[in-house]
Amino acid sequence: MESITVPAGHGRAFTLSEGQRVRLTTPKGQQSADFFAFRDDDMTDWLSPLHTWMPTRALHPRVGDTFLSRLREPMIDFVEDGADGIHDLLIAPCDPIRYAQFGVEDHRSCIGNLVEAMQELGRDVPIPPPAVNFFTTTTVADGFMFETPAAPVAKPGAYVVLEARMNIVCAVSSCPYDLTGPGWNINAPDGPTEILIELH
Amino acid sequence: MESITVPAGHGRAFTLSEGQRVRLTTPKGQQSADFFAFRDDDMTDWLSPLHTWMPTRALHPRVGDTFLSRLREPMIDFVEDGADGIHDLLIAPCDPIRYAQFGVEDHRSCIGNLVEAMQELGRDVPIPPPAVNFFTTTTVADGFMFETPAAPVAKPGAYVVLEARMNIVCAVSSCPYDLTGPGWNINAPDGPTEILIELH
Repeated sequence: MESITVPAGHGRAFTLSEGQRVRLTTPKGQQSADFFAFRDDDMTDWLSPLHTWMPTRALHPRVGDTFLSRLREPMIDFVEDGADGIHDLLIAPCDPIRYAQFGVEDHRSCIGNLVEAMQELGRDVPIPPPAVNFFTTTTVADGFMFETPAAPVAKPGAYVVLEARMNIVCAVSSCPYDLTGPGWNINAPDGPTEILIELH
Repeated sequence: MESITVPAGHGRAFTLSEGQRVRLTTPKGQQSADFFAFRDDDMTDWLSPLHTWMPTRALHPRVGDTFLSRLREPMIDFVEDGADGIHDLLIAPCDPIRYAQFGVEDHRSCIGNLVEAMQELGRDVPIPPPAVNFFTTTTVADGFMFETPAAPVAKPGAYVVLEARMNIVCAVSSCPYDLTGPGWNINAPDGPTEILIELH
């Protein structure tokens, strides 16, 4: 087993072979892990929440669900949930544009972390895709309005186990979002913390 | 004013200049119009429901909402709704892969219609993006499970008016979905019907 610690607010990338499992943990809790995946042989075919929820109809993933690529191929099975279902598919990953719109320049972001981490593996990201946001709570009220709770609720040690259905390359971002005011309560009030990646 | 009739189950593309308005109508009702938009000068920057709903928090669009591109630029304002809010942002556009998974080969699809219509304007679609599904009902139950009603509810003559915030190229697909069984009630029970495009 190989362990990788994603430093708070940063990202790390890794490959998974078909059948291989990975465990992601928020050791301190209340930390969103933005998870991205691509076909190992095609960086334009990525994990797509939009396509994933067509057969499942579920706007947050559950054990037994399969994450599909944008070409509707099974990429990853969700095999174990040690986070009480605290996961989201709706939030667009933060990027430098979003922080600039909040008036913050040069802020780290999940898309920046993705690109940086993939570069360390020698991979270019042609189009930054959507993410699966593990350890992130959203709920939908009134049939269509989505919202975050007053405080993030993932517990210390909350984890997920995923199994690759094809050869893929993945990235995990410890979401660097630490703004107050815009109304999204993504991470712990004291700021981002690390994410643990364990490859089996 | 220029009128274009999108034949049942087909697609048509057109350009809009900044400030120009378009009206889309389902003359017979109960017909989903999958709407795609791209920057006129960059076919890799497209209208993105995922980014649109971050500031609005709304999983179906409302008058006053602005559709954003995947780079979070304002593309289109939703200026008039003559369809009682019967619109969806969650359903992935149908494509040949989806029909093949249902066991149907050579079926028309919204992505096929998009690509075909853009080709008629001399445009390549590098990556088929998500769509805004006008005249399509979804609702979210239990905070995360999305569903369609027993029958589509957009009335005959239901329409929307959109205004471009930048120079864009758009496509409208009269969604060809006509399968029964898989549990999605997208179009009228007797099959797809035309969509009317009126350019001002």
